[in-house]
Amino acid sequence: MRWRSYGRWSIAIFVATVAAGALAQVLPSWNDGPAKQKIVNFVTDVTSQGGPNFVAPEDRIAVFDNDGTLWAEQPLYFQLAFMLDQVKAAGPRHPEWKDDPAFRALVAHDQKALAAMGLKPVLKLLAVANSGMTVAAYDKTIRDWLATAKHPKFDRPYTDLVYVPMQELLTYLRSNGFKTFIVSGGSIEFMRPWAEKVYSIPPEQIIGTISETKFTVTNGKPVLTRLPKIDFVDDGPGKPVGIYRGIGRQPIFAFGNSDGDWQMLQWTAGGTGPRFMGLVHHTDATREFAYDRQSKIGKLDKALDDAMAKGWTVVDMKNDWSKVFSFQ
Amino acid sequence: MRWRSYGRWSIAIFVATVAAGALAQVLPSWNDGPAKQKIVNFVTDVTSQGGPNFVAPEDRIAVFDNDGTLWAEQPLYFQLAFMLDQVKAAGPRHPEWKDDPAFRALVAHDQKALAAMGLKPVLKLLAVANSGMTVAAYDKTIRDWLATAKHPKFDRPYTDLVYVPMQELLTYLRSNGFKTFIVSGGSIEFMRPWAEKVYSIPPEQIIGTISETKFTVTNGKPVLTRLPKIDFVDDGPGKPVGIYRGIGRQPIFAFGNSDGDWQMLQWTAGGTGPRFMGLVHHTDATREFAYDRQSKIGKLDKALDDAMAKGWTVVDMKNDWSKVFSFQ
Repeated sequence: MRWRSYGRWSIAIFVATVAAGALAQVLPSWNDGPAKQKIVNFVTDVTSQGGPNFVAPEDRIAVFDNDGTLWAEQPLYFQLAFMLDQVKAAGPRHPEWKDDPAFRALVAHDQKALAAMGLKPVLKLLAVANSGMTVAAYDKTIRDWLATAKHPKFDRPYTDLVYVPMQELLTYLRSNGFKTFIVSGGSIEFMRPWAEKVYSIPPEQIIGTISETKFTVTNGKPVLTRLPKIDFVDDGPGKPVGIYRGIGRQPIFAFGNSDGDWQMLQWTAGGTGPRFMGLVHHTDATREFAYDRQSKIGKLDKALDDAMAKGWTVVDMKNDWSKVFSFQ
Repeated sequence: MRWRSYGRWSIAIFVATVAAGALAQVLPSWNDGPAKQKIVNFVTDVTSQGGPNFVAPEDRIAVFDNDGTLWAEQPLYFQLAFMLDQVKAAGPRHPEWKDDPAFRALVAHDQKALAAMGLKPVLKLLAVANSGMTVAAYDKTIRDWLATAKHPKFDRPYTDLVYVPMQELLTYLRSNGFKTFIVSGGSIEFMRPWAEKVYSIPPEQIIGTISETKFTVTNGKPVLTRLPKIDFVDDGPGKPVGIYRGIGRQPIFAFGNSDGDWQMLQWTAGGTGPRFMGLVHHTDATREFAYDRQSKIGKLDKALDDAMAKGWTVVDMKNDWSKVFSFQ
């Protein structure tokens, strides 16, 4: 390995050359450009045995936000759409909700107000609505909804709205020894039924918002029952905490798309050694949606400033992806 | 595969024969006997492609308690020994502790009282003692303690007190496509620094008791800081909840040793299809310790009754293990 003797810079050149040669073959739905090049360079760099930036396989932890990063999130977080249907259905059993701002906005179809208040107040109503439900029964309501509900713009099941380039990226990372995790503000229950099939990410690698559950044995049968309380919100500053609790290693690769992912990206950037921080920038109103600083859903403002200041990778959906969804 | 046509019973005989032939080669520190036979039969059964009890690899989830199941726990949970040292050292900074029962028992070296009150009150003191400490600094205090502290009976580092037969079992399960997890009442922080080296179980497969942490960015540096509050206790009925939160699948294989593992075993037993539930019964006062129903640490009473009533596998340490620790 003669090139080694030229020191750090020649290694960097060597890596870049390898990457350029391999570029056409990997990530086929990514256009050749700086975003793809930075991803491939990083992966080549940390997997080059004997290289200065080699990272042992067990430390190749990659974390991905879900809503807006791996699948779409407009015009309303898909879980919020599910929860609205659930809460609406439970309304008649809860007359005490009539003065609740979240419930009022829901009944009035006030999407703007709902988007502005975020998941938490609706999660609270949902927690009450589903209190006493076993986790198995709750899982079934999610599966049933996903099997029938359709996205308002694309008129397709929500699980069709995963981004092909990001599926390719997950596969590419795993084939290079990375372990891939979802770290989402959504609840663990809402992602687990389909993430393994769609992303090849198993339930035990999904970090998310957690509701309280209680274990009991009734008539000899052990059950876990939902309680009307959210225990942990895995969003914003909760994401590094969720990573610490659920993974226990600092990631070296993180991808998000909104200010809710900012702290996860900061936490990833804060470690020593090579680091990759990426943001999906929604710039494609035709194939998907275009939004950033002013959006009520998936607002991208401070994290975008920070990404630009620090040279993190910002993916321009319109220009960097040759394909967005598999059906297009 | 002609034997298939004979139906379920001949398959069971076929499986038993395979297992008997393979018995001598696997789990070398287990004596040939019913416990080892039941383990090998189960693993052979669920991994026999085309067999009636075949379980897909992604559902081969195995969970293990740590204290008393994978390593020793007498005369005092090792984490409790660590915490006592930590809390004692912090005493002078906390005059308000002078009337606290846990602190008083600690100063008086009242091991019986400490054992009786369990981890929780000491965890509370420790949480206060370590409040404001970064998670990195806390990790260092644990590593430093483990590097120097010695077990009172064996005069060796605590990490030498892992059970060789259980290390072999973990390896055997993984070589058969199982994913192995620790589900412990101990804190995640106390297990992560050494579990990967000793058990080949990575941090992200360790479920445990969780303290609250807070993410902040100070002088541009992101840090996670410990708060004086325990968020989740992964013991007793908390174990199925911890499994649900952190794994999201019902295990098909579970091993414990005390009543604190009873609910985890019940939850494992409650699923459909083949299930293995095991208990380590501490019967070896010479090589390790002998204790069960009357013990303050690792009390095994109700779970033992249930195991016997239901035919779960009870490992008799004295008779079933040819070796306990690697140094013996």
